[in-house]
Amino acid sequence: MKEKILDCLSKKNDYLSGDQISRHLGISRQGLWKHIQELKDLGYEIVAVPHLGYRLESVPDRLFDFAVAHNLHTKFTGKKIYYSDYLDSTNNLAMKLGMEGALSGTLVLAESQGKGRGRLGRHWLSPKHKGIYLSLLLRPRISPSNSPLLTLMSAVSICEAVKEAIGLSVQIKWPNDVLVNNKKLAGILTEMSAEMDKVNFVVIGIGLNVNNDRKSLLPQATSLREARGEELSRLDLLQGLLRRLEENYLLLEEGGARQIIDKWRGFTLTLGTRVRVAFQDKYVEGQAADIDSDGSLVIRKDSGLMQKISSGDVISCR
Amino acid sequence: MKEKILDCLSKKNDYLSGDQISRHLGISRQGLWKHIQELKDLGYEIVAVPHLGYRLESVPDRLFDFAVAHNLHTKFTGKKIYYSDYLDSTNNLAMKLGMEGALSGTLVLAESQGKGRGRLGRHWLSPKHKGIYLSLLLRPRISPSNSPLLTLMSAVSICEAVKEAIGLSVQIKWPNDVLVNNKKLAGILTEMSAEMDKVNFVVIGIGLNVNNDRKSLLPQATSLREARGEELSRLDLLQGLLRRLEENYLLLEEGGARQIIDKWRGFTLTLGTRVRVAFQDKYVEGQAADIDSDGSLVIRKDSGLMQKISSGDVISCR
Repeated sequence: MKEKILDCLSKKNDYLSGDQISRHLGISRQGLWKHIQELKDLGYEIVAVPHLGYRLESVPDRLFDFAVAHNLHTKFTGKKIYYSDYLDSTNNLAMKLGMEGALSGTLVLAESQGKGRGRLGRHWLSPKHKGIYLSLLLRPRISPSNSPLLTLMSAVSICEAVKEAIGLSVQIKWPNDVLVNNKKLAGILTEMSAEMDKVNFVVIGIGLNVNNDRKSLLPQATSLREARGEELSRLDLLQGLLRRLEENYLLLEEGGARQIIDKWRGFTLTLGTRVRVAFQDKYVEGQAADIDSDGSLVIRKDSGLMQKISSGDVISCR
Repeated sequence: MKEKILDCLSKKNDYLSGDQISRHLGISRQGLWKHIQELKDLGYEIVAVPHLGYRLESVPDRLFDFAVAHNLHTKFTGKKIYYSDYLDSTNNLAMKLGMEGALSGTLVLAESQGKGRGRLGRHWLSPKHKGIYLSLLLRPRISPSNSPLLTLMSAVSICEAVKEAIGLSVQIKWPNDVLVNNKKLAGILTEMSAEMDKVNFVVIGIGLNVNNDRKSLLPQATSLREARGEELSRLDLLQGLLRRLEENYLLLEEGGARQIIDKWRGFTLTLGTRVRVAFQDKYVEGQAADIDSDGSLVIRKDSGLMQKISSGDVISCR
């Protein structure tokens, strides 16, 4: 109902009588008043003037489920949203929901995380109302060995959504870091539940620093606010990101791995540079030559030999 | 306490006075009597004779947690056991426990399953008290791409445990079927929760037909009872299997993949035969030439080309 009331109020930039709204939505004046109060408590500035009605003055930058769903226009992404003020980790909840049979497209959002996780058990700083912390549950028809493509697809989606929202070009460091000015803007943690030959479901966890100021960032991290000098709407950015994720995911499911990799190449910092990659307790050094069809990094070693690396940490790009 | 009482009673093949037992275990005579009643209710035949005490006449063939733990002698396997009369699927519960942080070696047992699962969503018939239905949670230090080795390791463990228990030689069909007389005796469903480059945990589900008669078996399946002509103790077999699983798992963790694969070769029906394998919506036909170091099947096609197959169904072995 809150989504519908917001819909009414945001369509008209003027006062709308309580009578009109309640008739339109088929609820009582009393019921409407209760919902309006709740919206006000959540931070929506709604003025009520006798004989004129209600007017929406401003919306808070909160990622409430109904606010995200409002005008989202996706096919399945975010059809079901679990919103929390605080979670230990959005990925933990999404994995649990996956085990319980939650549908593809189920979205978990938190305004803050206590134990936000990055790859290999690393911590992701998740201060309240500053960043976007989401986990998206998907049920792709791919084999576990092709699942790294989902990480590439997610990195591409972040770059596209940021470009679209504020015109800022951001870069990808293989496999899953999104950078601005060589500092970390976003991270992706893809987890899956799988049989040996079949993925049951995948959870794509994304942490994106949006309105963080310097003191809520690690030295090697940055935020869109830092890069741009002003705050921006997390809600708009999130909706754009969800649309891009769905679009690129559908492309992947329809056999468009090549196109995803091509897009990825357009955003990457890694290809063509000299890299040193930590991989299974050893280092591989050479020229980052290509990305393979399964998302692996192909390195041309000094001996001329090519080596494929499915996962690892790119240590230096000089 | 039940495990300790059984321990006392089974150590002596004669009457043991209630006084001795309760003093030894530090419980009251009343408390002992209550536990003895419970054991009798569970099917343990315990006779009580005035002035003589208690004597254990027989134990039921049930896989009670305390009975399995009794004299198991493993390092970590089955240190925590979840026993149920009925579960929809032991793998489902084990995956859930894994998500909640259960330790490596946690064991889930059920006397029957309503939705016992095989690979690719297939059903595993799990009639009550007939078979062994277990799921073992492990936290191996391997990458997702090496996880098929755990399935090979499990198949080897089943073959070894059956051989040890009743001297019967059983065979493996790649990757995860255990056969007797070309009929299916046991199946393995390995599932995992993983990041792209790190396994969080693995659940090895095993369904083993032990005392099933013909009417509780599918036409293409068999049981140890069918192969041998008489019933056998599921409890003894299970304990042997758990010991073998732990032994082979530790071997794998200590870098013994080669040794596991060598053992696997000794039990296999597949290698050296002509096979047709359903693999990613197509068929590959040729000679099953080898097993690769990551558990993949290597097929020599008629063209002479070698093809590696990470998973699939071997359709015919003629």
